[in-house]
Amino acid sequence: MAKHSDITKRFLLSAKQQEIQALHHLSSNCRTVRAVKDMIHQLQRERGMSNVFLGSKGERFANNLASQVTASEESEQDLRSLLKSLYLGKHDNGQSMRLLSCITFALQGMDHLPNLRSKIADHQLTPLESTKAYCRLVAGLLDVVFEAADVASDPAMTRLLVALFNFMQGKEYAGQERAWGAIGFSESQFDHSLCDRISALTDSQNQCFETFSNFADAEELQMWQALQNSEQTVHIERLRKMICSLAEGDQCATELSEIWYDIATLRIDAMQDIEEHLTQRLTEQATLRINQAEEEHRNHEQLVASLNNSPPHADAPITMLYDSTVQGLRGADHQEEELIETSALTAHKSFYDLIRGQAKNIQDMASELNAAKQALNEQKVIDRAKLLLMQQGKLNEQQAYKKLQSAAMEQNIRIAELAQRVVNKVG
Amino acid sequence: MAKHSDITKRFLLSAKQQEIQALHHLSSNCRTVRAVKDMIHQLQRERGMSNVFLGSKGERFANNLASQVTASEESEQDLRSLLKSLYLGKHDNGQSMRLLSCITFALQGMDHLPNLRSKIADHQLTPLESTKAYCRLVAGLLDVVFEAADVASDPAMTRLLVALFNFMQGKEYAGQERAWGAIGFSESQFDHSLCDRISALTDSQNQCFETFSNFADAEELQMWQALQNSEQTVHIERLRKMICSLAEGDQCATELSEIWYDIATLRIDAMQDIEEHLTQRLTEQATLRINQAEEEHRNHEQLVASLNNSPPHADAPITMLYDSTVQGLRGADHQEEELIETSALTAHKSFYDLIRGQAKNIQDMASELNAAKQALNEQKVIDRAKLLLMQQGKLNEQQAYKKLQSAAMEQNIRIAELAQRVVNKVG
Repeated sequence: MAKHSDITKRFLLSAKQQEIQALHHLSSNCRTVRAVKDMIHQLQRERGMSNVFLGSKGERFANNLASQVTASEESEQDLRSLLKSLYLGKHDNGQSMRLLSCITFALQGMDHLPNLRSKIADHQLTPLESTKAYCRLVAGLLDVVFEAADVASDPAMTRLLVALFNFMQGKEYAGQERAWGAIGFSESQFDHSLCDRISALTDSQNQCFETFSNFADAEELQMWQALQNSEQTVHIERLRKMICSLAEGDQCATELSEIWYDIATLRIDAMQDIEEHLTQRLTEQATLRINQAEEEHRNHEQLVASLNNSPPHADAPITMLYDSTVQGLRGADHQEEELIETSALTAHKSFYDLIRGQAKNIQDMASELNAAKQALNEQKVIDRAKLLLMQQGKLNEQQAYKKLQSAAMEQNIRIAELAQRVVNKVG
Repeated sequence: MAKHSDITKRFLLSAKQQEIQALHHLSSNCRTVRAVKDMIHQLQRERGMSNVFLGSKGERFANNLASQVTASEESEQDLRSLLKSLYLGKHDNGQSMRLLSCITFALQGMDHLPNLRSKIADHQLTPLESTKAYCRLVAGLLDVVFEAADVASDPAMTRLLVALFNFMQGKEYAGQERAWGAIGFSESQFDHSLCDRISALTDSQNQCFETFSNFADAEELQMWQALQNSEQTVHIERLRKMICSLAEGDQCATELSEIWYDIATLRIDAMQDIEEHLTQRLTEQATLRINQAEEEHRNHEQLVASLNNSPPHADAPITMLYDSTVQGLRGADHQEEELIETSALTAHKSFYDLIRGQAKNIQDMASELNAAKQALNEQKVIDRAKLLLMQQGKLNEQQAYKKLQSAAMEQNIRIAELAQRVVNKVG
């Protein structure tokens, strides 16, 4: 009597096929993220050494820098080959335009790294100019990771990517903090703006690592706690305080410069283990999800085949139209989710359960995905709000952040919520 | 000296190709939305007539219902053919699994419409049962529109889809309000829960139409204002008040039932023009964007060809590494967006400007897209929060909404913000 139409069955299978395809894309993006992570780490090292090399007029790190450039070039080569094989094949449709545009922009910078390196070797740049150039490229590469997280549609993997992106962004701020300190120390005197910059970067790190913590697993949290309690962290916090307590124009010893650089480097290098753990989990999860989805697809095919061979269901048809757990009419009594008891488990019943389960799953997924993407975007919203305040009130970054912070405290809301309001008012 | 690598050029072109593909998918989804809109309208009419038919023990609307079923079947046939041609072809990769799953679920309901209709013809269902069945199918179809909006990646089209989805959802609540009224009147006596239901549906309509208004264009707003000031709206508001002022157990005349149904129907039918305007704009916008993107692709190809023929740039290379408008290092002075003056407009310069412009565009787009999707999700978040409160506090829907409303007022935040907090606390 009541039969499912052919088109319904085909849509069920097609949805699963598209899920598998999307997971393959996601898996490609995770491989890219891993290669980008390595490339960024090498660039951070190269940036730090170039900074000291230029600041010391070529006295320090000349040899280390040369071998670091070789390491960076190897990472770059790996990344380029991977990008080419993953995204420029003939059958790679359905990739995100935004991701590809971000990759294009980062590649544009990578194309000109040789020029940057030769300028550094010839002392044609100040430490600050050199640092800025590397920071732009790292920011471009971080955008690739951000987009990979933003286009993901699997909640578990999105959560992992949000954790990883925030950790990488926090690590980059740690690298920038090291750079400002190194530039400040090498100039042998401080002004208060350096203290402001270090405070702003400390705040930014804290925000990133807090978001990371919200999405990390127990093991990663433990690793992070260990790093937070480590000697390097204690030392770096002491040095931060020292910088801020130095009076304007204070002379300070070159030794301090070396200590700052070494401690900050130890701390940054230690962060690598956590990044590695996150990318490892990401790879495992991608494989797992693809295998799962492929098995589900096989099961769906079997079910559809058995449905085609079963006699039409004689009883009241099993359909969403009469399923009291499906909400439609507002104000009707809400039915709790429940298993509908039927006398026999027919193929028709299994088919309906499958379709119903999938529809339900989408609702749950959407909500989890939404929460993860909101967390991903929070940092950007805060940055945007900060920029607006800086432009409107002629404030520096640290002042703008403090303004956001105190307004949020006053209104008893999270800083991200307040930032969203600032942005909404303007946009 | 400084050349762009081949891979950078290929990524630029590939990004544009993927954008074109995504726009074709989006255009397909818009055609689906249009057909779904027609189908929902026919179902709403069929639901209303079935409701009166059943309530009057078959005395009213028997003939109209038969011709309405024919109209519904025509819409259904159009929708099915379209779905088949748009999503089940061999080359339709890259479609959203969530969209396809929603379509599957709605198709499952559509497969069993003949069964529902024969039960109605045989008076085997109460008006409420029949109404619930239609509402489930309409909700399933509205989910298709929701997903089409949620997977869109073009901000202008997403805004249009958000406006349309909210308008359609609001119209559906108006249909449900008509149904509750019709059921209440046909039972010839009221209890206060009917007043609660009508109030809840009025609130829900207001929320939807408010979001619609935030994303509609001037003409649509004007059409909406005209409808708001129309006689039907004045009448419906008067009837709502009447319902709520009737005492428990009051008898009321059957004529009132007919007036209620007719006025509510006039109002709902008048909403069609606005839906039509929105879908018309959607279609135009889709065509426009595809043409734009294709022309951009041709221009990019020409530029890349001319780049391959130009001599390498001898000056300082034009690259993101040295572009002071590209943010990288925190705490460095922020440069306002500016046009970089160069002596000659070389192909290299145009190429860089293009890549830079695209990267910048992504940031702007992301923020606009984010705002639209947040608005899209607000209603779901409010619904989720309401459901949580209903389950926790054994409240009905209207009580739960009032609780959200007063808590939001107390904390001086929007109801959507408060709902997000309620959901976050639990999730």
